Amino acid sequence: MTMAPRASALDRVRHAIRELSGYYDAHPHAKVKLDQNENAYDFPDELKLETFERARAERWERYYAGRPPELLGGLSALTDWPAAGIIVGNGSNELLMATLLATAAVGGRVLIVQPSFLLYGRLCRILGAEIVGVPLDAHLAFDPGRIRRAIERIDPSLVLICSPNNPTGASIDPPGLRTILDGYAGVALIDEAYHEFSGTNCRWLLDEYDNVVLLRTFSKAMSLAGLRVGYLLGQPPLVEEILKAKLPFSLNPVSCQAALTALRHRTILRSRVETIVAERDRVIAMLRAQPGIVVYPSDANFILLRVPGRGDAVIADLAERGVRVRKLRGHPLLEDSLRVSVGTPGQNDSFLTALAASLAANV
Amino acid sequence: MTMAPRASALDRVRHAIRELSGYYDAHPHAKVKLDQNENAYDFPDELKLETFERARAERWERYYAGRPPELLGGLSALTDWPAAGIIVGNGSNELLMATLLATAAVGGRVLIVQPSFLLYGRLCRILGAEIVGVPLDAHLAFDPGRIRRAIERIDPSLVLICSPNNPTGASIDPPGLRTILDGYAGVALIDEAYHEFSGTNCRWLLDEYDNVVLLRTFSKAMSLAGLRVGYLLGQPPLVEEILKAKLPFSLNPVSCQAALTALRHRTILRSRVETIVAERDRVIAMLRAQPGIVVYPSDANFILLRVPGRGDAVIADLAERGVRVRKLRGHPLLEDSLRVSVGTPGQNDSFLTALAASLAANV
Repeated sequence: MTMAPRASALDRVRHAIRELSGYYDAHPHAKVKLDQNENAYDFPDELKLETFERARAERWERYYAGRPPELLGGLSALTDWPAAGIIVGNGSNELLMATLLATAAVGGRVLIVQPSFLLYGRLCRILGAEIVGVPLDAHLAFDPGRIRRAIERIDPSLVLICSPNNPTGASIDPPGLRTILDGYAGVALIDEAYHEFSGTNCRWLLDEYDNVVLLRTFSKAMSLAGLRVGYLLGQPPLVEEILKAKLPFSLNPVSCQAALTALRHRTILRSRVETIVAERDRVIAMLRAQPGIVVYPSDANFILLRVPGRGDAVIADLAERGVRVRKLRGHPLLEDSLRVSVGTPGQNDSFLTALAASLAANV
Repeated sequence: MTMAPRASALDRVRHAIRELSGYYDAHPHAKVKLDQNENAYDFPDELKLETFERARAERWERYYAGRPPELLGGLSALTDWPAAGIIVGNGSNELLMATLLATAAVGGRVLIVQPSFLLYGRLCRILGAEIVGVPLDAHLAFDPGRIRRAIERIDPSLVLICSPNNPTGASIDPPGLRTILDGYAGVALIDEAYHEFSGTNCRWLLDEYDNVVLLRTFSKAMSLAGLRVGYLLGQPPLVEEILKAKLPFSLNPVSCQAALTALRHRTILRSRVETIVAERDRVIAMLRAQPGIVVYPSDANFILLRVPGRGDAVIADLAERGVRVRKLRGHPLLEDSLRVSVGTPGQNDSFLTALAASLAANV
């Protein structure tokens, strides 16, 4: 029996992977779970049933269509964009990865606004793309002039912008987008995961800039984070290239039917979005009345707040009170900050009560 | 309105992606569909119902656990391997990609036996890994001595072996594996997608070599290609590193419950595997009685055959008769060859009849 020395195979793991930490883990048993920007409400049971009635008629033993025509048709109608310019994936993360692989992996340069969704930088490291970070301004708002100057300086293959931005909540406005995009010749990905909570979107960009791709998801407004359906919109020739970099057959028939069901019943889901938006504004107003914290405006289903000098203590204290929020890391602008999802009214009250108690206990 | 010139964004797409063709597409409407090594039988309706009853109780709006404890426990019991050394993914393809990313992407070297599963080479190109191909022997069997010599010459970070091999059908035996692995210090991935049809497996390797990872899937023997569940077994520290390179939360609760349901009812699924194996041997015997073709032995749920001088004509003719088989490309050893899945007895008879007619029509 031959036994290779234990360390040897690990020695062959790439340095870029070894130095990464594990990704954030789900904490399904938290009493009040407000740490992952999930929708406050489960996908409705009657829509689960409808999903299943249709998925049951599909053939589960077969690989599912890479570009399912019915879902692409539904998304085309939703977005007024040709189906040939749409791809779907196993969550928008997969399409983000495919876009990075198509444009910037293995030595290309990616401009990332910081702080933003941590997966952007993580994927760049994994895929061997060079990250050029451009900070938000001191109020955690976009600084289009600064992004524009960075583009002129470094000529990135890909620009990644999340709007509304996770974890800060601010959107970039149309003049800001024009400042960034006018004259830029690489690919720009606008991640609109949270756009339904903002009342606006960047669909207009597709009519004016043929190097823009929009990334969207059923995870947030559609209550389907678990079922993994994302989609990407762009010019068909560019979308074709991104599709080539994606694993084949990654979407399954049940998730596809869940997405179609969500589209059929989007008035139900939209009214829940309205509830979440109203709750967000209520929670922000309550937080602003609370001394000792800084609250940032939000166009999304989460709120960023800063507790100067007491961030870690408050987050730990909240967890002890059964309220799980997200501790933020990886950027100086996020010191002492936490991100809290907007939950149901009851969850939000639990959070507000626990926060007041935590602040009182950690003076 | 500013319009970037149409070609510019495409010019930023990586050369490695531009030169790829699109991946093979599903042809759901073929009358007799034998082109993707799918199981001959759909996942049973009563198991779909059981899957759904359990999935309905899950929260679809939440991100699902990255390492679902119940499924890892079931797989641990199935394989007699600790759950800490198992990860699950959205199909084994995703875990193959993660293994490549952990070990060999961005400039590393991968030894691939050729011909084999086309996705191996495709992913290496996409991820910027250098491919070193080692051919099978003239009878399309593994040549362990040749693989060993290549390892000594090039010292790959990763060795990829598919056993039973797709698209050729042959397995590598234990002495052959020892020849390859003894003294090799990198990571070896053995893709066992088809092992249930071979009556044997490589589980023993994990007890002897700590640089081996085994890749398995619910797509073939378990009739769940559409639902995307794969798993990987290896030493826990190595598996941790591979997990870091995988997208988070990629498995969904419905697929997880489908896999658990398959495990609970695996006697049903196993009896279907036995039917497929018996059909495979029947079809091979019938094909061997057919003049003008070369038939290769198979340990899997598909059969490779060669029609010297008439491969393309016969494949096109079969398609016209409603029988879709897989045309093979990308390697000289596969000239004039086709791969046909083992279907139901009726599908197999349709194939055999159509093939006889095609051969008679293309003399």
